[in-house]
Amino acid sequence: MQRYFVEEDLLSEGQSVTLEGEIFHHVSRVMRMQSGQEIYLVGGNQVAYVAEINRIDDKMLQARLLRRVEENKELPVTTTLFVCLPKGDKFDLIAQKTTELGVDYIVPVASRYAITKWTSQKAGKKISRLQKICQQAAEQSHRTVIPQVLDLMTVDQVAKSLQAYDGLLIAFEETAKAGQHGQLKESLKAVQAGQHLAFFFGPEGGIHPDEVACLIQAGSHVKLCSLGPRILRAETAPLYALTALSYELEL
Amino acid sequence: MQRYFVEEDLLSEGQSVTLEGEIFHHVSRVMRMQSGQEIYLVGGNQVAYVAEINRIDDKMLQARLLRRVEENKELPVTTTLFVCLPKGDKFDLIAQKTTELGVDYIVPVASRYAITKWTSQKAGKKISRLQKICQQAAEQSHRTVIPQVLDLMTVDQVAKSLQAYDGLLIAFEETAKAGQHGQLKESLKAVQAGQHLAFFFGPEGGIHPDEVACLIQAGSHVKLCSLGPRILRAETAPLYALTALSYELEL
Repeated sequence: MQRYFVEEDLLSEGQSVTLEGEIFHHVSRVMRMQSGQEIYLVGGNQVAYVAEINRIDDKMLQARLLRRVEENKELPVTTTLFVCLPKGDKFDLIAQKTTELGVDYIVPVASRYAITKWTSQKAGKKISRLQKICQQAAEQSHRTVIPQVLDLMTVDQVAKSLQAYDGLLIAFEETAKAGQHGQLKESLKAVQAGQHLAFFFGPEGGIHPDEVACLIQAGSHVKLCSLGPRILRAETAPLYALTALSYELEL
Repeated sequence: MQRYFVEEDLLSEGQSVTLEGEIFHHVSRVMRMQSGQEIYLVGGNQVAYVAEINRIDDKMLQARLLRRVEENKELPVTTTLFVCLPKGDKFDLIAQKTTELGVDYIVPVASRYAITKWTSQKAGKKISRLQKICQQAAEQSHRTVIPQVLDLMTVDQVAKSLQAYDGLLIAFEETAKAGQHGQLKESLKAVQAGQHLAFFFGPEGGIHPDEVACLIQAGSHVKLCSLGPRILRAETAPLYALTALSYELEL
């Protein structure tokens, strides 16, 4: 069943919800749905209902909530990914796939070895695009939360923000090369439901030692970790980390 | 250091290796390397050496093995992925990413709900292309094995081949929808080093119940499993499964 996120809170059976703009266009023009057909709505309060379309006008449609759907599609922890700008369109893939894998916040990071640079003008467009990708992937993967793509940060700014998290795991190739593969599992096994866990991923060229030092100084909750013995591309590493989290906590 | 796979076995320090064709072109024209520079070679016997270029001619170059590199980049089990043909260029992504994640064999499968069809002529070209992607990804991720892309099979043929594996896990959306998320972890925890584990992934439209029945009948070593509570796209599921395997066995 087609799934849409709406801003208003969904509270009770019988509630009437008005759909306009992009959702209206998608339901009526792309899917060519008719009155009487059912869609799946997720409210701003992250509650999901099956709803029946009961009126379609030129620019809006109305749907009536039929029955609440109890489901648990979200990771038991909140997750933030700090992602140093990768090359080309790799960030699109990261946004789509990590949304499928349960991420909550994605923070683009400007780092020293990154070839890709965002001007402040470019950043706005890029972030809008990534946000759109997250929304579509959230609909497709049946999530009840749309991940948020936050503003571009520097590594210094990331370091200063780290008190907000229960843990930060930095994917670090040197840790992998040294054959020290145990930290990720150790950290994920210690995570408790309701905590907020963050991950940091470098760009293709890796993370500069000064940047690593800057992050590590933020506290003992910051750890370097390996993602296994093979060298993963910049866009594969975030997928690995979130899958590991899902495997540890959800399966 | 640039890494290349060669056919001949690499046996001892001082051995001279001749490089022609694509490797020659890449070393001399793309990387513009000179005599005296070092490259990384992996032999047909899956042994890796650092080698020094000691001669570059018009169409070939010679390198001398300097020192053996002891490394363990491969999963402790052999893995085969049966992948029903996904839409568009999604198979390219699957081949690249699962190579990074350690796959050994990839088998394209023609299934009932797949929109993509390969004619026998098309299959040859597609398989060559996927094989090339695997090779490049193997070089990039520092593997000592290049995964092999095998010929297109039908689901019936897959079912008949299943005695060759110690286990087959079928990623099945209905198992996930039923909230039964435990099988993957249970199976991966029971895997022993040296075993050969296979996975089966449906196309976008899912696996037909008759196909599931056909595979399940092959034996008690065939299991249905969930990849967590969210709906993963066809190309994300193989990445999830292999990451879970790596996390369980390598970290």
